[in-house]
Amino acid sequence: MEASARVIARRGVRGLRVEELAAEAGVSTALIYYHFKDRTGILRQTLEFINDRAERYTRERAAAEQLSPVEELRSTLLLELQDVPEVRENSTAWGELRASAVFDETLREDLARATLVWVHEIAELLARVRPMATAPALAAAAERLIALLEGLSMRWLSGGVPLDHARSLLSDAIDAEVARLGA
Amino acid sequence: MEASARVIARRGVRGLRVEELAAEAGVSTALIYYHFKDRTGILRQTLEFINDRAERYTRERAAAEQLSPVEELRSTLLLELQDVPEVRENSTAWGELRASAVFDETLREDLARATLVWVHEIAELLARVRPMATAPALAAAAERLIALLEGLSMRWLSGGVPLDHARSLLSDAIDAEVARLGA
Repeated sequence: MEASARVIARRGVRGLRVEELAAEAGVSTALIYYHFKDRTGILRQTLEFINDRAERYTRERAAAEQLSPVEELRSTLLLELQDVPEVRENSTAWGELRASAVFDETLREDLARATLVWVHEIAELLARVRPMATAPALAAAAERLIALLEGLSMRWLSGGVPLDHARSLLSDAIDAEVARLGA
Repeated sequence: MEASARVIARRGVRGLRVEELAAEAGVSTALIYYHFKDRTGILRQTLEFINDRAERYTRERAAAEQLSPVEELRSTLLLELQDVPEVRENSTAWGELRASAVFDETLREDLARATLVWVHEIAELLARVRPMATAPALAAAAERLIALLEGLSMRWLSGGVPLDHARSLLSDAIDAEVARLGA
């Protein structure tokens, strides 16, 4: 799965060749097909892998830091915008899986489910900051923050905005959403 | 250029074949190469074409409606989220050009320039709503709104969110940014 995330981040979903993946993982193509059945199986498992990995380097890390609720929220979201190989690779692969779903419907359900889980996680963190906010207001704020993060992440990865600037735009958006959810 | 936007929206940037483009435009491949020199020339001109076209179906249309400044801003941004073939094709092609820039540096400068023009346009509309806001605050709000719009647009095109919901999330974000810029 690590090899697959690496190959997708290097060549894109549409450039993913099972032969290259097998070479990267140091196994035979037969073993790849045995494990994942087909290309869709590879993509589906890779999506799950990058989500689990993001969970580790964002939520779990932020939760371990014993921050105030608003700082835990900020830290969780900003940890997605870091110039370290793991995050860059994860974000590139996630953006590619999302972009390929525009043309190919196969992964849409998996992507929708993964996005929903992510929205719930962020809505939960927002609820700790604003316990009186309604569930729909929290969900909408979480959806906006995540969609903004995806937009900024694509812009950063494609060289359209420096990382610091993307981080500061996201940080200000967090403040705006928290302010909007009231006291 | 229309044919090129259509082919990119159908197959993606990486699926763009000059033969298919020539067939779509009803001309010879030699004529395509004569006009655009190479693949990069095609992509560069297509980017310009989709930006000009977006300008027409968003800003010019919103400006013609004689709206209040905040409604003109809202209309301009929401016109990017419409389920009509021209907008869907434009947004798909734009998303593809952005996504391909993660892997290929050729178009990065053109994309950055086009994005900057777009940020300025939205910042100008915001300035009419909030004449006392500072230029950096206006630019940051415009950047956030556009990055959010791109994120929502990708999510809509990949089947991750219904159009109405994407529009309502964007509309609320406009209110939040306007509120944040003060009176």
